[in-house]
Amino acid sequence: MSSVQPEDKFGRVFGIDGLTLGATSAAIRKKGRLDLVVLLLNNTATVAGVFTQNNFCAAPVQLCRQRLSRGGPISAMVINTGVANAGTGAGGIEDAKNICYELAQLLQVNPDSVLPFSTGVIMERLPVEKILSGLPKCLDTQLVMGWEEASRGILTTDLVPKISSRNFQIDGQSISITGMAKGSGMIKPNMATMLAFVATDAHVSNKCLDEIVRYANDRTFNCISVDGDTSTNDSFMLIATGASSDPKITSADSPGFVKIRDEITSVCEDLAKKIVLDGEGATKFIEIRVKDCQSTAEAREVGFSVSNSPLVKTAFYASDANLGRIMSAIGAAHVINLDVSKIDIWIGDVLVAKDGEVAPNYRERDVKPLMESDEIVVTISLGRGRNAATIWTCDLSHDYIKINAEYRS
Amino acid sequence: MSSVQPEDKFGRVFGIDGLTLGATSAAIRKKGRLDLVVLLLNNTATVAGVFTQNNFCAAPVQLCRQRLSRGGPISAMVINTGVANAGTGAGGIEDAKNICYELAQLLQVNPDSVLPFSTGVIMERLPVEKILSGLPKCLDTQLVMGWEEASRGILTTDLVPKISSRNFQIDGQSISITGMAKGSGMIKPNMATMLAFVATDAHVSNKCLDEIVRYANDRTFNCISVDGDTSTNDSFMLIATGASSDPKITSADSPGFVKIRDEITSVCEDLAKKIVLDGEGATKFIEIRVKDCQSTAEAREVGFSVSNSPLVKTAFYASDANLGRIMSAIGAAHVINLDVSKIDIWIGDVLVAKDGEVAPNYRERDVKPLMESDEIVVTISLGRGRNAATIWTCDLSHDYIKINAEYRS
Repeated sequence: MSSVQPEDKFGRVFGIDGLTLGATSAAIRKKGRLDLVVLLLNNTATVAGVFTQNNFCAAPVQLCRQRLSRGGPISAMVINTGVANAGTGAGGIEDAKNICYELAQLLQVNPDSVLPFSTGVIMERLPVEKILSGLPKCLDTQLVMGWEEASRGILTTDLVPKISSRNFQIDGQSISITGMAKGSGMIKPNMATMLAFVATDAHVSNKCLDEIVRYANDRTFNCISVDGDTSTNDSFMLIATGASSDPKITSADSPGFVKIRDEITSVCEDLAKKIVLDGEGATKFIEIRVKDCQSTAEAREVGFSVSNSPLVKTAFYASDANLGRIMSAIGAAHVINLDVSKIDIWIGDVLVAKDGEVAPNYRERDVKPLMESDEIVVTISLGRGRNAATIWTCDLSHDYIKINAEYRS
Repeated sequence: MSSVQPEDKFGRVFGIDGLTLGATSAAIRKKGRLDLVVLLLNNTATVAGVFTQNNFCAAPVQLCRQRLSRGGPISAMVINTGVANAGTGAGGIEDAKNICYELAQLLQVNPDSVLPFSTGVIMERLPVEKILSGLPKCLDTQLVMGWEEASRGILTTDLVPKISSRNFQIDGQSISITGMAKGSGMIKPNMATMLAFVATDAHVSNKCLDEIVRYANDRTFNCISVDGDTSTNDSFMLIATGASSDPKITSADSPGFVKIRDEITSVCEDLAKKIVLDGEGATKFIEIRVKDCQSTAEAREVGFSVSNSPLVKTAFYASDANLGRIMSAIGAAHVINLDVSKIDIWIGDVLVAKDGEVAPNYRERDVKPLMESDEIVVTISLGRGRNAATIWTCDLSHDYIKINAEYRS
């Protein structure tokens, strides 16, 4: 977690040469609130993305998938909040196309090179006229250092904007990576009401970028859970502008491939944790480490069973070391032939359960201060293999109900 | 729902000849609270049961499974609340055996003919001495009409006791069925922190009773969800005392088999709905009907995806007809090749979504009174088959958090 705090300022944000960002208020839902963002990419940029697994995916997701799969260059991305443009049928696709078309006209580019993104209320049509009116202002405000404004412009019920940025060297060449994300509700395995845009000035081929986006996603955004709901609009886009022309990453064997992949993954992990920390109503950040499993899938299954249990999450909210609920959630995971008498559990460094029972010397007061902390680490050993996974989640509080019962009112 | 109301008195309760019940306070968790119940069965009784699918099943569940599978007669059942005797290892098994042994001594029967049941906090040992001291009082209070006391004695966070009872005739022979249940939290597919005991004075062979217990369970207790958590202690026991010696139900072809099976299922449905209605913090009862599916499993998958979604449940709590959340939850279900453009949704009798979009003439004010009701029916058609399933659930309120954050304090 280190410096991840909701109140945090961003720390240093590195601009990414070859990419500019601009934001405005198009009054989509509320006047004066930033709700429309445009990203402009240089002509050497490569782009890769992963999207929601929800069968009911939004119009912009359908259009993004089509346009990315055609393989041509991407010139711009346009993002609105307030309305998700999901459950809007053929009309919704037309709306998204019209917005892309108008932006393409303003930029004098091929409309197929514009990618649309939306987040917000589902099953309402986009206020297309408002969005079209806002586009020129998004172009007027374009800046390489426009990340802060843009990161505010993509939020919905999030409390704080989320940016992660770093700069490092490969063979004496300076490389930067900067990303922004929104999350908050509907956060769970296989992506979330989550939009993430991560960019680097490195030169990375489409094929390598595609490999990296999946690698990073599996280890970061797909390891978080706020409420177990999966959204219609989740999108994680990875952009490599190539402005820093060396090194050229064209295959997994290219010098620098592993370094870039791992730094991108680290930026994504940082953003993923910030999403959890800013989960709807979250008061605590919880890391569930599951180890000694027969497979990574098994470790993830157990981790998500624990992290998605409302009973576990309310116990964490109450700082209650309710071991029974954790055990019960482990037992509810679909794991074949699980021998519960081999399970050990730690809260922080304290062994609380040994061989499936309360540990012999465990006293609840030993973990009380740990449970009252705003960061809790739970480690679970299934004692039946060598694989592991880590899931990040938050507690379930009164405010989650308040936020979600009143979202549209 | 008809007469199902939390405040309801039981209506007429029919005693079951051949079965008596007694309850007492053993001060397991709180003084003066009924928390220990004993059922005594006549020597012609047959018994069948289904139990939790949780890998981490409680000591009494393990013992019940063993003792039922041995096939001998069952003389008594002993139930305590307050402590679940789960996650207690070999010591927990010993505790349960000791309690059964003591009861068997008092009754002068084989200890293997006594079945134990527990519900309450997990990973704490039973206060065995307190329970042993309470047993004689449970025997002193035995009554054929002891259902009301017993139904109070098995509760934990439930607000009201739950009984369902009926009497009918088969070929001029009077038959009664009476059942009691507890539920409240951890209610989800594959049973719950749920104990249910249903008895009839009919004569039913072990084999037939085993078939009926599974049939009824699949259509009732396995169709409810409060919070998506599965517990360690779920047990549903079906008893046929045989006191009403005709008809003799010895095979699925026996006259009366279908009638008895369906009446038992109906009692279970009544109890299952009462459990949902008394779910932790529940303010509304919600029926999710999923139809036109390729299989029943598919219909159940969609029904549970909707009924387990915290976002859907908080919207119901707020009387908010948030169609997007319902659609998103349908889309999140694991259904292969789902064509969302074929999905229709009704709230009550109002068509709210047609072909995957908001229905053309839908106005939110048409469903507002329906959403504000304390019983809501949502019907979902996938438009791809002939199979259906119905799931019963409740909303997610502030009180769920309050109850579960403060459970042990």
